[in-house]
Amino acid sequence: MLSDLKLIIMGNGSAVPTRNANPSSQMLIYRGRQFLIDCGEGTQMQMIKCGLKTRRLNDILISHLHGDHFFGLFGMLSTFHLFGRDKDLNLFAPSPLKLLLEKVFETSDTRLRFKINFFPMEDFKSTPIIETDTFTINGFKLNHSVPTQGFVFREKTLPPKIDKSFVKSRGLTVKQINDIKSGYDFIDDDGKLYSNKDITSKSRSPLSYAYCSDTSYSEEIIEHIKGVKLLYHEATFDDSMLGMAETKKHSTASQAAKIAKLANVEKLILGHFSARFKSFDLLLNEARLIFPNSQISIQGEAYDIV
Amino acid sequence: MLSDLKLIIMGNGSAVPTRNANPSSQMLIYRGRQFLIDCGEGTQMQMIKCGLKTRRLNDILISHLHGDHFFGLFGMLSTFHLFGRDKDLNLFAPSPLKLLLEKVFETSDTRLRFKINFFPMEDFKSTPIIETDTFTINGFKLNHSVPTQGFVFREKTLPPKIDKSFVKSRGLTVKQINDIKSGYDFIDDDGKLYSNKDITSKSRSPLSYAYCSDTSYSEEIIEHIKGVKLLYHEATFDDSMLGMAETKKHSTASQAAKIAKLANVEKLILGHFSARFKSFDLLLNEARLIFPNSQISIQGEAYDIV
Repeated sequence: MLSDLKLIIMGNGSAVPTRNANPSSQMLIYRGRQFLIDCGEGTQMQMIKCGLKTRRLNDILISHLHGDHFFGLFGMLSTFHLFGRDKDLNLFAPSPLKLLLEKVFETSDTRLRFKINFFPMEDFKSTPIIETDTFTINGFKLNHSVPTQGFVFREKTLPPKIDKSFVKSRGLTVKQINDIKSGYDFIDDDGKLYSNKDITSKSRSPLSYAYCSDTSYSEEIIEHIKGVKLLYHEATFDDSMLGMAETKKHSTASQAAKIAKLANVEKLILGHFSARFKSFDLLLNEARLIFPNSQISIQGEAYDIV
Repeated sequence: MLSDLKLIIMGNGSAVPTRNANPSSQMLIYRGRQFLIDCGEGTQMQMIKCGLKTRRLNDILISHLHGDHFFGLFGMLSTFHLFGRDKDLNLFAPSPLKLLLEKVFETSDTRLRFKINFFPMEDFKSTPIIETDTFTINGFKLNHSVPTQGFVFREKTLPPKIDKSFVKSRGLTVKQINDIKSGYDFIDDDGKLYSNKDITSKSRSPLSYAYCSDTSYSEEIIEHIKGVKLLYHEATFDDSMLGMAETKKHSTASQAAKIAKLANVEKLILGHFSARFKSFDLLLNEARLIFPNSQISIQGEAYDIV
């Protein structure tokens, strides 16, 4: 079964890229709608390698303005322009990026063919960044050396499912179906009453995902991400580098796992690895001691969120 | 034998990158000294893949300010900073880049640890961009939609080689050696004269390389690149797209070959390919009809210039 929510990791490295770890970028896909989260250098090439169609992308979220989280935007937006894009693009990012983009495109003699709807992150303190009938994406404050937001996607509670054979045998109208989904009982033409609970069943639990990068250990984020099905949390350092993590406002693998445990999430994937690690086994072992359902994020891999 | 001059192609694509073609960047290496020519997005990752050490890089030349020729600079310079670089970096580029770099690093909260010596390209109309005792690098005007420079590296004529056994048997001093290299005859302690031509032999011919990207067909460049051992010339389009090449101020493969022929270069490699080409055979065939010693540049490949 195809999952309704999928995450594709395009870059799991930190500020200094390595042969196998690009700077931060990932694509969250909900029923075909793409959300690009961060856009480090090389993201457009990673999208090609991951088989993602840039045409389908309308929403980009940037967590903060360290280069490894947005230097790929300039090339990607230029490419959209050269591909003849004419539909708007929504860009949710810290406000100084707006002016910088204008400066970059002015200097590179590019007059974008399409409109960028720029939404300053500062405006999303208490309202969702994006909200539709079926989901919300909210931002929340991370604890980093520059203003940084985490993101949490939450599907809304799905209406109950109506027994298909009942719909068919009674020839229900759209209004009747919507009424039943809203919780009403059903009375047929002969006056016979069907209790709502007898003709419906619960839908699957709502899907959810949270992105926390870059941040030091911060229990303040727990309320925002609690219970999510998948958490991506940065683990730039291992436990022996706790002091450096604190100085540089990053996290260790154990700290990421502790957040996952306290927030009672279902699964944790670690990312934003320092270039000094040749293998991530150490980080994984440290995390699993605290939160067993931990994994190392793998570049190019798609994670079904179910 | 290791060549004294080597070119490594790190990006041979044009504005829109593909799975196998990165935006423009290449490294020219003369006796261990590296010159980075253009720096499209992803160049720092390409350098890693090509086994190049960023520590050795002190000179960067940017041909023009279209994004596919310089969007990789921001990430690369950030990485140098994070690696703790403290020695100066020389950047030769169109002047508006200076202000843009300042804006980028201000926005991304980066105060570079090292100094960038910025040399505005506009200053190098008649003087070499770089000149040492052994080589020059000059810029020259290309014909593109924004101010664009080509680059030509020319080794200076090497002094004649002195017969090693003669140096050894006579126990020549450094001054005596230099005198002979300067063309003087040699007189030994007994007054015996050795004619310069009898104790020296000609060194190999000077090495040279020229970079022409991006440009439309322009015979004005010929005087600058004539006789070079290797010419990299853009061939964004094939001959059927001549109209588009003219409109967009790019070249076709035949036009690149015609320039190579008129300039009497030794070898031509083509690059800056449009993303529409799945294979470059057509471009190669068109070029070879006019200039047989043509090749397609291959990403990741090192070319010895001899």
